[in-house]
Amino acid sequence: MHSSELNARIINRGREFFAGIAGEKPSLFDKGSWMGKMMDWSMGNEQFKVQMFRFVDVFPSLTTGKLLTEHIREYFGDEREMPPFMAAGARVAGMLGSFGGTVLNKVLTANIEEMARQFIVGETTKETVKNLGKLRKDGFAAVVDVLGEATLSEEEAENYTNTYLELLDALQAEQEQWQGLPGTGGDPALDWGHAPKVNIAVKPTALFCLANPQDFEGSVAAILNRMRRIFRRVMAVNGFLCIDMESYRFKDITLEVYRRLRLEHPGYPHLGIALQAYLKDTDRDLDALLAWAKEKDVRISIRLVKGAYWDYETVKAGQNGWEVPVRTIKAESDAAFERQARKILENHGICHFACASHNIRTIAAVMELARELDVPDDRYEFQLLYGMAEPVRKGILKVAGRVRLYAPYGHMVPGMGYLVRRLLENTANESFLRRSFAGEARIEQLLEDPAAAAERERAARSARPEKEQTGPDGLVPFKNEPMADFTWADHRAAFPEALARVRSRLGETCPLFINGRDVATGELLPTVNPNRPSEVLGQICQAGTKAVGDAIAAAKAAFPAWRDTSPRVRADHLLRAAAAARERIFELSARQILEIGKQWDQAYADVAEAIDFLEYYAREMIRLGEPRRLGHAPGELNHYLYEPKGVAAVIAPWNFPLAISTGMTAAAIVTGNCVVYKPSGLTPLMGRCLAELFREAGLPPGVFNYTPGSSAIMGDYLVDHPEVSLIAFTGSLETGLRIIERAARVQPGQANVKKVICEMGGKNAIIIDDDADLDEAGPQVLASAFGFQGQKCSACSRVIVLDAIHDRFVARLVAMARATTVGPSEDPAHFMGAVADGKAMERIRGYIEVGKTEGQLLYEGPVPEGEGYYVPMTIIGGIRPGHRIAQEEIFGPVLAVMRATDFDEAIRWANSPRFALTGGVFSRSPAHLEKARREFRVGNLYLNRGITGALVERQPFGGSRMSGAGTKAGGPDYLLHFMDPRVVTENTMRRGFAPNEEMDTGQERV
Amino acid sequence: MHSSELNARIINRGREFFAGIAGEKPSLFDKGSWMGKMMDWSMGNEQFKVQMFRFVDVFPSLTTGKLLTEHIREYFGDEREMPPFMAAGARVAGMLGSFGGTVLNKVLTANIEEMARQFIVGETTKETVKNLGKLRKDGFAAVVDVLGEATLSEEEAENYTNTYLELLDALQAEQEQWQGLPGTGGDPALDWGHAPKVNIAVKPTALFCLANPQDFEGSVAAILNRMRRIFRRVMAVNGFLCIDMESYRFKDITLEVYRRLRLEHPGYPHLGIALQAYLKDTDRDLDALLAWAKEKDVRISIRLVKGAYWDYETVKAGQNGWEVPVRTIKAESDAAFERQARKILENHGICHFACASHNIRTIAAVMELARELDVPDDRYEFQLLYGMAEPVRKGILKVAGRVRLYAPYGHMVPGMGYLVRRLLENTANESFLRRSFAGEARIEQLLEDPAAAAERERAARSARPEKEQTGPDGLVPFKNEPMADFTWADHRAAFPEALARVRSRLGETCPLFINGRDVATGELLPTVNPNRPSEVLGQICQAGTKAVGDAIAAAKAAFPAWRDTSPRVRADHLLRAAAAARERIFELSARQILEIGKQWDQAYADVAEAIDFLEYYAREMIRLGEPRRLGHAPGELNHYLYEPKGVAAVIAPWNFPLAISTGMTAAAIVTGNCVVYKPSGLTPLMGRCLAELFREAGLPPGVFNYTPGSSAIMGDYLVDHPEVSLIAFTGSLETGLRIIERAARVQPGQANVKKVICEMGGKNAIIIDDDADLDEAGPQVLASAFGFQGQKCSACSRVIVLDAIHDRFVARLVAMARATTVGPSEDPAHFMGAVADGKAMERIRGYIEVGKTEGQLLYEGPVPEGEGYYVPMTIIGGIRPGHRIAQEEIFGPVLAVMRATDFDEAIRWANSPRFALTGGVFSRSPAHLEKARREFRVGNLYLNRGITGALVERQPFGGSRMSGAGTKAGGPDYLLHFMDPRVVTENTMRRGFAPNEEMDTGQERV
Repeated sequence: MHSSELNARIINRGREFFAGIAGEKPSLFDKGSWMGKMMDWSMGNEQFKVQMFRFVDVFPSLTTGKLLTEHIREYFGDEREMPPFMAAGARVAGMLGSFGGTVLNKVLTANIEEMARQFIVGETTKETVKNLGKLRKDGFAAVVDVLGEATLSEEEAENYTNTYLELLDALQAEQEQWQGLPGTGGDPALDWGHAPKVNIAVKPTALFCLANPQDFEGSVAAILNRMRRIFRRVMAVNGFLCIDMESYRFKDITLEVYRRLRLEHPGYPHLGIALQAYLKDTDRDLDALLAWAKEKDVRISIRLVKGAYWDYETVKAGQNGWEVPVRTIKAESDAAFERQARKILENHGICHFACASHNIRTIAAVMELARELDVPDDRYEFQLLYGMAEPVRKGILKVAGRVRLYAPYGHMVPGMGYLVRRLLENTANESFLRRSFAGEARIEQLLEDPAAAAERERAARSARPEKEQTGPDGLVPFKNEPMADFTWADHRAAFPEALARVRSRLGETCPLFINGRDVATGELLPTVNPNRPSEVLGQICQAGTKAVGDAIAAAKAAFPAWRDTSPRVRADHLLRAAAAARERIFELSARQILEIGKQWDQAYADVAEAIDFLEYYAREMIRLGEPRRLGHAPGELNHYLYEPKGVAAVIAPWNFPLAISTGMTAAAIVTGNCVVYKPSGLTPLMGRCLAELFREAGLPPGVFNYTPGSSAIMGDYLVDHPEVSLIAFTGSLETGLRIIERAARVQPGQANVKKVICEMGGKNAIIIDDDADLDEAGPQVLASAFGFQGQKCSACSRVIVLDAIHDRFVARLVAMARATTVGPSEDPAHFMGAVADGKAMERIRGYIEVGKTEGQLLYEGPVPEGEGYYVPMTIIGGIRPGHRIAQEEIFGPVLAVMRATDFDEAIRWANSPRFALTGGVFSRSPAHLEKARREFRVGNLYLNRGITGALVERQPFGGSRMSGAGTKAGGPDYLLHFMDPRVVTENTMRRGFAPNEEMDTGQERV
Repeated sequence: MHSSELNARIINRGREFFAGIAGEKPSLFDKGSWMGKMMDWSMGNEQFKVQMFRFVDVFPSLTTGKLLTEHIREYFGDEREMPPFMAAGARVAGMLGSFGGTVLNKVLTANIEEMARQFIVGETTKETVKNLGKLRKDGFAAVVDVLGEATLSEEEAENYTNTYLELLDALQAEQEQWQGLPGTGGDPALDWGHAPKVNIAVKPTALFCLANPQDFEGSVAAILNRMRRIFRRVMAVNGFLCIDMESYRFKDITLEVYRRLRLEHPGYPHLGIALQAYLKDTDRDLDALLAWAKEKDVRISIRLVKGAYWDYETVKAGQNGWEVPVRTIKAESDAAFERQARKILENHGICHFACASHNIRTIAAVMELARELDVPDDRYEFQLLYGMAEPVRKGILKVAGRVRLYAPYGHMVPGMGYLVRRLLENTANESFLRRSFAGEARIEQLLEDPAAAAERERAARSARPEKEQTGPDGLVPFKNEPMADFTWADHRAAFPEALARVRSRLGETCPLFINGRDVATGELLPTVNPNRPSEVLGQICQAGTKAVGDAIAAAKAAFPAWRDTSPRVRADHLLRAAAAARERIFELSARQILEIGKQWDQAYADVAEAIDFLEYYAREMIRLGEPRRLGHAPGELNHYLYEPKGVAAVIAPWNFPLAISTGMTAAAIVTGNCVVYKPSGLTPLMGRCLAELFREAGLPPGVFNYTPGSSAIMGDYLVDHPEVSLIAFTGSLETGLRIIERAARVQPGQANVKKVICEMGGKNAIIIDDDADLDEAGPQVLASAFGFQGQKCSACSRVIVLDAIHDRFVARLVAMARATTVGPSEDPAHFMGAVADGKAMERIRGYIEVGKTEGQLLYEGPVPEGEGYYVPMTIIGGIRPGHRIAQEEIFGPVLAVMRATDFDEAIRWANSPRFALTGGVFSRSPAHLEKARREFRVGNLYLNRGITGALVERQPFGGSRMSGAGTKAGGPDYLLHFMDPRVVTENTMRRGFAPNEEMDTGQERV
């Protein structure tokens, strides 16, 4: 916190500032304009704001009058429902209906484009250069930023890089005609006597389409390659390059890029980086950067901003179970900014400072700090966004002289995202500009020391009794296990370490686990690394019918006691298994990287999902374990309760070798059944891990039995066995139907009608609507189709693209695919690894050949030489619903592209296979999204996101039709399938006397 | 309400009364005694009271020290948990554990027996006569009542009758030695100069074991037969007979018995009847009785009581959905008593009055009323219960002289029920005696005019805002359709009337109903009355595969629109069908009486259950139709919702021809499926009624299709059809397993894995524990085993009786059976009618022969001559678990009796068949009931009640093992089986912007 004298001076300066701009308003808040009215309406009506900002987002895609009209209707209803300012044009014209639609189209188009122009300095180089000149005439310098769609491919990254190079060429030509802006520095050819006239900002992730902290080194190197080219050009024009900071995920990569580039040209001073005061890390990062600069004896430049991705960061963290990386108290960010500004200014000898804020308190503080610390003018400047806070920039210009405007340049399409962010931040309740200029706060409040305000807010929050959230029986409520967070260096380091540890113990012999004891059998089969089949991971004892019979007998013997164990105690076993898995999460991930070829994040997600199943089903069983009282008739007590069925056979697949095995097993066990578990022949070691987790959890002998072995030898035996009452299976359609059919035949001595819980295949489609956000759709389709080599039941194997957008989407998709590499899964540089085994490889290659005859090959990627079950990443276009690769499950990295004439046809095609597991739609049409909700009939439908990665509790998983029998793993009904309900009715009336909670009736009788 | 002068006089007299007995306490409230302590403890502790009164109830059955000790422990815990007064004996002796147990046994036995003796004038005739003499010495007359167990057989009724005759003999001998009690009447040989010295009270239902208002005339005649014999003997000894009033169910029968007996001996004055002031009917009944007496010119006598079955009446009414027949405001009963007393006293010329109350206000009011109305002494007297309210009786004796004590005589066993009732009424909060003598109310309150108090309470209740109970979407909450109430003459009359109406339209041709239209086919089959097979009820068009195919096509075509109809609208169709069924409830009952031979109440219950299914599933669907939001991660919306499966085949049985058909069909339809319904070949007309109900409900064409026909011809076709996605079946194990097996084979072109909802057979047992209440167990076993000829899935076909009680139970059971008659179901005099058809008759008879070889025939009833598919009611003893009739479902009136050595063996045997549907236990051992809850593993377990008659919502119905697949019709999970869950996940974040209910986050960004 500042000294009280300093704070007083800051407040005084702030007051003067306000006085100096009294009566002025930023154009955004000018209610005379359409934009101002829109802002005003948005601030008063959250629902309208959402619709309007979403509409602005989709607007550039609405390339026909029809599309535009439809979307206006869908977003805002008809004229009668719109706010007056919107409908005004149409109303005045007295033209409702289709004529009104035309008028509205024009009004909205004109106004939205005008809004965009407010924030974008130019759509073309020429326009940009011209407008920059105008700004300079008004006394403002600029930093130019090139707007870009998300960079999805190498071509796009290259184009983006080239745009900068071209821009620099144009600016170089232009700057010679620019006079330096007035200032106290020495060189009149420079702005303010010291600053380059050419100043650009670059977003590092735009330079590499696969930037990803999981592949930290690869990402840094690739970004640096292109950044270096830009920087060389910048130096050539004697300009300034600032590397922008984007989302938290890329922060460390960006810092690393900056440091390396800095060292490559230590003598050239004009290289800066942006830091975000709202990040909890920034104090530490700033210290480290300053220390590094001192150590390396280089000069650096820091643009300090508050940070522009607050919503995004909090949402992403919330969704992934990570700690929120940004400060959640607004005043804390403001205080951090002042604190960090002081730190930078104190180090002005080595660090140039760009103060990027519209906040008058912040600006006043920086001015006073600079004065207190005697910072020369050439060591700091002020930056604001082009098009915003006009009174503020005027005020600073008056006082400090050195104002640089952050000026985006580029097309309307990428500009809309930028516009939405600007609108959002200005409508936020805590926006300084809103509070200052939309008349909601007093100047004293606006100028208060943010450290004091933060203190107060922290105190208020800790005084507010947090809503105590408790789960069943006093447990904390269920929460998904966090995803691996590769922004943390220790998570990145943990994988190679765990892989090495696991590798050091390869080749061990793995016994069965029956009735609480390891059981070795004579027959051994190796399990291998599909990326390197010569690497034998272990020798697996094979269970034959004898061993399976023993396991069933053990399960049967254990059943009565386990059934009679209380739900809470059964649940506790699951919770202990979850704790054990959490403890070993990197090791378990490493094991499946090796045994089935998952990528790091995929493997970790599988273990996390296993933990989720354990934690979730434990709580579910406690909930369901409480007998429910039914009815309220007097004199009777009806209790509804659930009981397990007996011995459960769990037959698991290899593709989620821990998660699905754990889910089915945990459900069976926690409901009171005893399990004979047959893992897939491809992942017996992961199966063995499950046995170890349950052993660590202290499960009584016989409750869980592990019997790896050949389906051909003992599959039918297990299914047919009269003592098996329940079969939980996840796998192929063929095997699933075989199990269903066999289990339906009652065997001699069989006690129960067998229950089959069956999850089978999918033939999942993503529909790309003509207004889809391709920046989102492209990467999500790629990930859904080719993540883990497409070997997920949920994987996307068809993408149905509306004609109007087809070619553009496909071109981007193929370009993205081309950027990916295939190779051993354990190397995070590879997007794809080998498929499960040789049989899978042959099958998938066969389908690729089929696809080539049915459609047109759009992309077939390279595969590494040598051993490993690799198949190429394959995209085949021109596929129609009748084609085999549009109907049959391939279970590999083969994507069929289908061109649909309209959305109805797309839905029809999407629904056409016999499977109905997952599906997705990318659309920004509320009507189409609604139609998809109703008519795209799959078990898991995803709107505007990828279609894999269902999470326990949030996206209970499973399909219908030939994909399954309507069970939903990880959902609220799942455990019911493992139990039979019972009702116990007690007549509580004896001799006309019924105890009753409500009535102590008391009529005198005689 | 009385005049205020009269009320003031009443209060004055009451005050004097209280003053006259000041300082005295009834022995019940004397805290010096064990009983007083027990009463005191019970009044302060509801839980203890329940345990104690239940213990008193079971006490007579605890015939061994071991049983007694165990029950004491189970009811009261060990000595440390008992109230001090109970454990005192054992504690003082310092003897906990088994020694303490022995002491406790003695203490409790002694005290409970002493309590019983408090209220029972004698256990033997000799003792009774002696004690009556003592009472007379103290100035009290008596009315003697013979305690009896429930009369379950003709033998028991005869024994009971004979006991009265013997009692009268003994009293005749004795009365000659008794001096008349002093009084102002003329004849010194009579009590008080005018009253017979011998006075008895008789409970009419004790004279006929099958008394039942459904067979009103039969019940009246049978009771009258024995009552007449008693009355003749009473007249012979110049005594007084009062016919007691029991529960409401028998009120009209009792009044009718009284009237007829009165007219048979119009000249003999001493015949009375009891009326209950707490009944809402009594004002009207009293007026009618007085008018009748005037019209017939006979003298009558009325004993007015408040009424002793308040709990029972409210519970029974609550359970059956009937209006509560008793007043629910205590003061209203008191006010009614005074009002009715006045009416009787006003008519003292023709009506003698016995005022039976312990309430000093009531007594004072009667005294003042009599004085105001100048009623001569010989026209009224006061009655109190023997052993209660000693100060009150002394007070009356002092003032009025004429006090008669109601004095039960008989054994301890039946006496315990009487004791419990006395304890209950004295511990009730509103008990006048408790309020007067357990020190809780002031005299002013006790003497207040009850009419004023009632007025006040009514006002208070209507001021209290009733807890608004609403069901889903604004509907009233689900309530079971009331049972037929045969206490109402119009319900009794409705059946013969409806039967006649239905009969007038016999023989019609019944077409199929497909796609909203009637469809006639060439082939006709008759449906007949099983009680008279020559009576053809209708000619049924038979559906072959062609028609079934058409129906499936119609259902398929109707499906998309029906699926997309909102749950609420679908539910409304069910509610309309329920209203239509309610409208026609007697006609629908009559139809199934004729078509399948149900008794009146059974048929009505079936229709009521059908209505319940419609009402319940409608509400359930509204509940489940609301998409559920899952998870609370920001930036995503997950909705969990349910969708129908498609075409459902409903294959229904004949035994609940409307209810089960309606249940399965309504569930399928309301969830959005379309139905092809095949009724049983034995009840196609009832099936047709269902079609009519749905037509009246306005169901769109094709949603429900009715295709009666032969299983052999089209059953497999329906099950195998690839367009059928769901099969709901209720019927035999054999057919069920066949369906399960066939449905599991996927047919070419089949879209869905077929779901089979299957309810199959049962082999249900009732266990009779050694402490069971045989008064309850006997009739409940009889009803469960032989109701509707034992043709219910839930019927009792085995009764497992503990050795200790076996012979006594079996003797009573067989005696009960002997009392029943078999004949056409439409005549309510018959307990049983014909079975379903000739095939059933042959099968059941075959099993009877098997049973005779496996065990000992205990009872084989007669069957009527001539046509009709009758089989005898059959009870076979000596059956062991290995016998066929202990394992195979017979589905007819054949009951196997098994003798088990202990409760564990009984449970083991009960669980031994492959079925697990229903079961029951009669026991008063808390430990055994708890064990049964856990270990008697059937779908529906009933404790201390019959095992048939499961009600929708309260007892969701269905079993496991070979009885079914764990579905529970009428329960909260049932509809889930008819649907597949879907999850729709929307990513709501666009351009980093996610609308969020909780946070309008607002961090400033730059």
